[in-house]
Amino acid sequence: MRSFRFDPGTVHLLRLDTDDDLYDTITEYVKRHHIDAAWVTFLGAVKRASLRYYDQDQKTYVDFSIDEPLEVVAGVGNVSVLDGEPFLHIHAAFADESGTGRGGHVNAGTVVFALEVSIQVLDGEPPVRLPDDCTGLTLW
Amino acid sequence: MRSFRFDPGTVHLLRLDTDDDLYDTITEYVKRHHIDAAWVTFLGAVKRASLRYYDQDQKTYVDFSIDEPLEVVAGVGNVSVLDGEPFLHIHAAFADESGTGRGGHVNAGTVVFALEVSIQVLDGEPPVRLPDDCTGLTLW
Amino acid sequence: MRSFRFDPGTVHLLRLDTDDDLYDTITEYVKRHHIDAAWVTFLGAVKRASLRYYDQDQKTYVDFSIDEPLEVVAGVGNVSVLDGEPFLHIHAAFADESGTGRGGHVNAGTVVFALEVSIQVLDGEPPVRLPDDCTGLTLW
Repeated sequence: MRSFRFDPGTVHLLRLDTDDDLYDTITEYVKRHHIDAAWVTFLGAVKRASLRYYDQDQKTYVDFSIDEPLEVVAGVGNVSVLDGEPFLHIHAAFADESGTGRGGHVNAGTVVFALEVSIQVLDGEPPVRLPDDCTGLTLW
Repeated sequence: MRSFRFDPGTVHLLRLDTDDDLYDTITEYVKRHHIDAAWVTFLGAVKRASLRYYDQDQKTYVDFSIDEPLEVVAGVGNVSVLDGEPFLHIHAAFADESGTGRGGHVNAGTVVFALEVSIQVLDGEPPVRLPDDCTGLTLW
Repeated sequence: MRSFRFDPGTVHLLRLDTDDDLYDTITEYVKRHHIDAAWVTFLGAVKRASLRYYDQDQKTYVDFSIDEPLEVVAGVGNVSVLDGEPFLHIHAAFADESGTGRGGHVNAGTVVFALEVSIQVLDGEPPVRLPDDCTGLTLW
């Protein structure tokens, strides 16, 4: 297990606009503001979702999309450093019209209807993502 | 995109009682303590859930309920200002007896069995909700 | 309703290793670091999940497991004091290969594939869990 310690820094709230790309818009924000360590949570609604499931045996991402409006019921993730740049990693639970739960790793291509995001900046040495042989992922 | 910055303030933990209304009880607490900017997360269990799904085309909420005991597996939301008063906006992911996921926008009428809530107060100018033509919602 | 107030303290980020027990590893960390009040959120993936659903009428936990790889899409919980020791209480929303939502109270026996955890330490008098007659649970 690896562990890191931080002091709680500034909290940024973002309200994304309709048709923003959920992943790309938050990524651009953290890059523009040089935020390289943060904890992220969010809620709202999307027009469609581009998600990924990691095949733990094959060590490959399986991409899929849900092409219908969804509530974003709970999103969680973080900002760390990958290849010298701020990198966003987020997962989310969704619910459809019938209240049925869905979810996955949130990829670019997820189109915002309305979204409220908290970015809790972490003051301290940022976690750095490096290739991890055991999982095939880049992990801090 | 709109953005706001805050210093992290006091963290309030609440433990709601059995038969409390989940939404109304947290709302009353933040009003009584004059909390007008906060980030909220929660977990626990409810006796029943009153939820909403927003129809993005019709721009209307579709209310529905789940009339069975549910675990609250991840709740996320925030407090901002609407019409001059603290306003609570929360979504949650639930799971039923079989571990099946459910979820939605949490409405009044959701009856607590046991609930643990974190209210992270945000020190700074509170976000204010105003009507948004594009979505038909009130957004900060 | 009971309420508690804290100042936000150190934020610990943990990255658990493959085959770590999700619940036991976080518990050992908070005990080793004498963290007795904290708010916890997490995301990642597990090889299998050991979950519980609380039967509100019978006042007993019903344990079940999901014996397949799952994304952890949103985990929420806290650290308080039970029997004089730090005690971890966590719930999580999961998603399977098809993006279908699952969830429950996370028990020991949940095997990590990769997991990222935020532990927000809360500075102040820790909440203490005591038996609650109304629910049959130990609650702060």
